[in-house]
Amino acid sequence: MRILGIDCGTERTGFGVIDSDGRVHRLVDCGVIRLRAKDPLESRLAAIADGLRRLIAAQVPEVVAVEEVFHAVNTKSALKLAHVRGVALLLAAEAGVTVAEYSPLSIKMSVTGYGRAEKQQVQSMVQSLLKTDTVPFASFDVSDALAVAICHATQAAFVAAARKPA
Amino acid sequence: MRILGIDCGTERTGFGVIDSDGRVHRLVDCGVIRLRAKDPLESRLAAIADGLRRLIAAQVPEVVAVEEVFHAVNTKSALKLAHVRGVALLLAAEAGVTVAEYSPLSIKMSVTGYGRAEKQQVQSMVQSLLKTDTVPFASFDVSDALAVAICHATQAAFVAAARKPA
Repeated sequence: MRILGIDCGTERTGFGVIDSDGRVHRLVDCGVIRLRAKDPLESRLAAIADGLRRLIAAQVPEVVAVEEVFHAVNTKSALKLAHVRGVALLLAAEAGVTVAEYSPLSIKMSVTGYGRAEKQQVQSMVQSLLKTDTVPFASFDVSDALAVAICHATQAAFVAAARKPA
Repeated sequence: MRILGIDCGTERTGFGVIDSDGRVHRLVDCGVIRLRAKDPLESRLAAIADGLRRLIAAQVPEVVAVEEVFHAVNTKSALKLAHVRGVALLLAAEAGVTVAEYSPLSIKMSVTGYGRAEKQQVQSMVQSLLKTDTVPFASFDVSDALAVAICHATQAAFVAAARKPA
């Protein structure tokens, strides 16, 4: 199954594409769409849409996995981030790709086994799982995007296994 | 100047198009994009995008005017609404249309002269300003969308007048 994980952000939006059977994950593509903080929000949304549209067309994922929006930390940031998330969900829907959403806790649990893991721990585990230990990611935005993709791969495999008759 | 006002919402997104010289406003088009509450958010965003994209192509506004996002009332609702707003801003940017944002207070002040006006008062004033008193709007979503368009028309005329040498 090919999964596109997106880590939405108004300054940097990370993405990661993996192929996975639920246990073995293979890195296909990853990177960051960088936005200029001085640009108006609508221009940044257009740049994100352009990048994600090309990526979905090129990689043809079956699922787009994103983090659930949460507002515990900073409501103003969360509201900005929700604009980007709206664009990401729109592009998935327009491409006919299924959307899956996971809480930050589920994502960290799924990748590191610990729901309160630091970004550095998430990145190390993502690199280990994808056997990319020797290639540093550009930023945590990339490892966070790959983490949500891995989370979906694991969850989907678990659900599929649970559905099989004993 | 042709202005498209949008009242973003995840169940109903209102829109209103006016032509205005800053003092006299003429209704061009208005309506509501209705969404099914049971549909996933991404499907609703796609329906909103489809509706707004057709509207912008048909009416060719110079400006898209939207209400600033605010979270005083209900953060969860504000976060959902911000997804819709992201889609609206994206479509404006992709069509090369300028975006203008106004606070709820400015919009009410501009239309009724009173920053804490009720929706009914806003609707009555919008109908009076557009000389559409005899045609009831489908809902407050329409009058709210037209109110933000009228707010921009008034503000833009004020700014233009202030820029003229004495």
